[in-house]
Amino acid sequence: MSVDAVGTVRRGRGARKAIRQTRDVTMLPALKRGIPLTEPMSQEQVMRIDAASMAILEDIGVVFRDPIALEDWKRAGADVRGERVHLDRGLIRDLISSIPTSFTYHARNPANNLPFGNDHSIFVPMTGAPYLRDLDDVRRNPLLEDLANFHKLSHMLPAIHSSAHHIVEPYDHPISQRHLRITYSSMKYSDKTFMGMTTSPKNAEDVMEMCAILFGKEFMMTHPVVTGNCNGNSPLVWDETMLGAMRAFARYNQPVLCSPFVLGGANTPAGVAPSVAQLNAEALSGLAYTQIVQKGTPAIYGHYLSTVSMRSGAPMAGTPEISLMNMMIGQMARYYEVPWRTSNTLGGAKTFDAQAGYESATTLMAVLMSGANYIWHSAGWNEAGMHCSMAKFVVDAEQCAMGYRMAEGIRWDDFDEALKAVGDVGPGGHYLGHPHTLENFQKAFFMPELFDNNSIEQWQADGSTEITERALTRVRDLLNEYEEPKLDPGTDEALRDYIDRREREIPAADALNQFL
Amino acid sequence: MSVDAVGTVRRGRGARKAIRQTRDVTMLPALKRGIPLTEPMSQEQVMRIDAASMAILEDIGVVFRDPIALEDWKRAGADVRGERVHLDRGLIRDLISSIPTSFTYHARNPANNLPFGNDHSIFVPMTGAPYLRDLDDVRRNPLLEDLANFHKLSHMLPAIHSSAHHIVEPYDHPISQRHLRITYSSMKYSDKTFMGMTTSPKNAEDVMEMCAILFGKEFMMTHPVVTGNCNGNSPLVWDETMLGAMRAFARYNQPVLCSPFVLGGANTPAGVAPSVAQLNAEALSGLAYTQIVQKGTPAIYGHYLSTVSMRSGAPMAGTPEISLMNMMIGQMARYYEVPWRTSNTLGGAKTFDAQAGYESATTLMAVLMSGANYIWHSAGWNEAGMHCSMAKFVVDAEQCAMGYRMAEGIRWDDFDEALKAVGDVGPGGHYLGHPHTLENFQKAFFMPELFDNNSIEQWQADGSTEITERALTRVRDLLNEYEEPKLDPGTDEALRDYIDRREREIPAADALNQFL
Repeated sequence: MSVDAVGTVRRGRGARKAIRQTRDVTMLPALKRGIPLTEPMSQEQVMRIDAASMAILEDIGVVFRDPIALEDWKRAGADVRGERVHLDRGLIRDLISSIPTSFTYHARNPANNLPFGNDHSIFVPMTGAPYLRDLDDVRRNPLLEDLANFHKLSHMLPAIHSSAHHIVEPYDHPISQRHLRITYSSMKYSDKTFMGMTTSPKNAEDVMEMCAILFGKEFMMTHPVVTGNCNGNSPLVWDETMLGAMRAFARYNQPVLCSPFVLGGANTPAGVAPSVAQLNAEALSGLAYTQIVQKGTPAIYGHYLSTVSMRSGAPMAGTPEISLMNMMIGQMARYYEVPWRTSNTLGGAKTFDAQAGYESATTLMAVLMSGANYIWHSAGWNEAGMHCSMAKFVVDAEQCAMGYRMAEGIRWDDFDEALKAVGDVGPGGHYLGHPHTLENFQKAFFMPELFDNNSIEQWQADGSTEITERALTRVRDLLNEYEEPKLDPGTDEALRDYIDRREREIPAADALNQFL
Repeated sequence: MSVDAVGTVRRGRGARKAIRQTRDVTMLPALKRGIPLTEPMSQEQVMRIDAASMAILEDIGVVFRDPIALEDWKRAGADVRGERVHLDRGLIRDLISSIPTSFTYHARNPANNLPFGNDHSIFVPMTGAPYLRDLDDVRRNPLLEDLANFHKLSHMLPAIHSSAHHIVEPYDHPISQRHLRITYSSMKYSDKTFMGMTTSPKNAEDVMEMCAILFGKEFMMTHPVVTGNCNGNSPLVWDETMLGAMRAFARYNQPVLCSPFVLGGANTPAGVAPSVAQLNAEALSGLAYTQIVQKGTPAIYGHYLSTVSMRSGAPMAGTPEISLMNMMIGQMARYYEVPWRTSNTLGGAKTFDAQAGYESATTLMAVLMSGANYIWHSAGWNEAGMHCSMAKFVVDAEQCAMGYRMAEGIRWDDFDEALKAVGDVGPGGHYLGHPHTLENFQKAFFMPELFDNNSIEQWQADGSTEITERALTRVRDLLNEYEEPKLDPGTDEALRDYIDRREREIPAADALNQFL
């Protein structure tokens, strides 16, 4: 399905150019934090979580369901009993000490390279949705063209720092070959950073090969160019698929997010502090393993985190305990001097209603206050991740731009000049025509374009549209204005050749998805 | 219009009792903060704002459009030139030093008394809406019965600490007498704290007289029982109406919120730091004046704050600069050791759509991080305050309960016990049946009742309702379950007598609102 086919008007090159002159699609640099972190634990409480996690690793141990990892752990000196690995705190501390505290995350356009770690944060769109809500707000299975559209939007939205990978699952291609098309789509439609699929060790190796084509193998071996996520199975299990993918990335020195998958209360204890203690143990065991595979490879302290409704078993988002746990996890990651990942704008609403707004904004504020470095799922997430909404995608991205502005902190450079304006205007006056206002208003106060702040009369005259409709109009405009940041033709051909070869090698017959 | 008349089912006493047993309507105590404040200014920057504000007060001065206040200021030793009062920083510091840092805010039910100031926060509903969105989500002018319904909801919602005053404007009573009926409604339908009207000095005096009837004059003169808000006209003007109301409250030792009304960029400079410097000067001038009227009377550092769209002139909410300014104002109020007020859940959406959710949640998080003591407009606000939404009222109140939980911080009391559960469950297990879970799940993770986190299949089976419809069902249930906390009959009679007498005295003829 092309953009034209869903009712948008294709404009000529002149019109597109005119619009571009008014819309700034330049990527914001990685956010550099200018406000204090929220740290709800004392140093003593940080040590208490650390001690509890280390006791879990030593006394209970972690199951690695993977013969290679078990052999690796034995060689590293761990106490391996069957599949269960008991990890001494000295060994853990020694292993994680070689994880880089920060690095540069490279994009194919060097202008979009990102300083990563410490007081920097980046926003990465949601991934993994089996459905989308499309340009008509219809919920359906996505196609490769839908994925391309999300990559185009990611490319154009200033606060979004990555095109991620499978923002939505493209059902019109065999599942066994899909990772190739997804990776190509990330690379082709955006020149920002992107993510690599970890759906199997083999798939991860394909991603590495394609990155070697895009960036050059030598460059890639010494520069982070792609991130992959590996989920742990809480409580305290890592499986063969994830560990194999982790090894594929680590061997190329590419950063892996070691992310326990926490449903608080179901696969962790019913409590904030003990849940963090368990999650912390799980993340540390994954992080430590990356350093056995490749000492010094970048790795990211990850987690996926929801709390579970004890009434229905459903995952929840935007809850106070998730906010607190994010703040605590940030403290733990900083204690270990490892960059960390969180999830943004999660929520369980079925439509883009007020519930979705509350959940997303609460989460955004909490993760900004907690100082997360890698803020994943920053655009589009709804229905507990079951669908990615095109409307919500652009609204979330604008919210990220607003959060970015808040986290940058206070400008003081024009303070004295502005105070002179107070004297000029005096009691009872107004500032709208003052030279300082005219010079500063555009950067002084953020003006969200997708929020309607007009009077109800003006709003009615404009068609009484709620935010979903306004956002979808914005999506159509952006897709019309999109210009592809072309790949180098030789690189493009090499990538296509690689995909062709691999698609000949990988059986596709049994893989066409049953949903289509 | 009665509750029955809009389609709800009146249940018998037995049914109501059964529901009450499952729904806890007990008011939460004043929030006592357990997480750190967000303070984006260094101590040096706090001093810089202070110095700038003091220079504004000394060099530019503040206009008091009120002969009594000008005489008061002369007697206090200020440099009065016409209506403009130049305030020496020594005089300001001396005057504000007698404002109590904290006090107890008394309710007619002593169980609902609130510790106020320092690290305590209270949630107060929105006020002043000329429209409501009613039980059918229809936007219309409110009646006294609508106001009563909002007071009933305020009484029942646990995180709401006050019935406020004119949550909505009741148009079915003459405007000149309306303050009497509003005050009576606040007093009658809830036994929590409430607010007093400041729409004129005479109206404020009526509120004082009615409070004297409810609490006893002697008790009232030594105990805060009602709060009133006085807005300043930024830049740097206080008018006769507000100053007269301020005096009425201060003479009874009742706390006044001294609230500059800031439209950032329109009546302040285009910048966060200079806007706070001006707002701070304005608030200090009002606070200082309360102490001339009555030394030692409680007073609250207030503000109403939006930023202004330079495209349309419309007020905006949930913007990053408002968050930063709240954090900064909190620092200034703490520097002066005066409790402070902010606004919550502001927003400009015309319906209860996702925009309203984002705006409200962003503001709630920011004001919680900033440590505001008096968190006004905490329920129902929409359309830049032009309407109060019944649906949003209950959702906001649940969000306040969630924010409350976050701001309380981390529980550690069951930490060691919960860690034992990690050992019991072990790798790959689950916690749902573990005794620690069964004992703790209800308090461990907040379960929002107005968010739907079910699968889409379950949601469809339940009728595919968005949050507005679910919330209105909740409103109907609450109003059905409501039980009035009866006034003492003698007090009630005395209040009614007072109102009857005053309504005979106050001309009503020209006052019936043109909207009806």
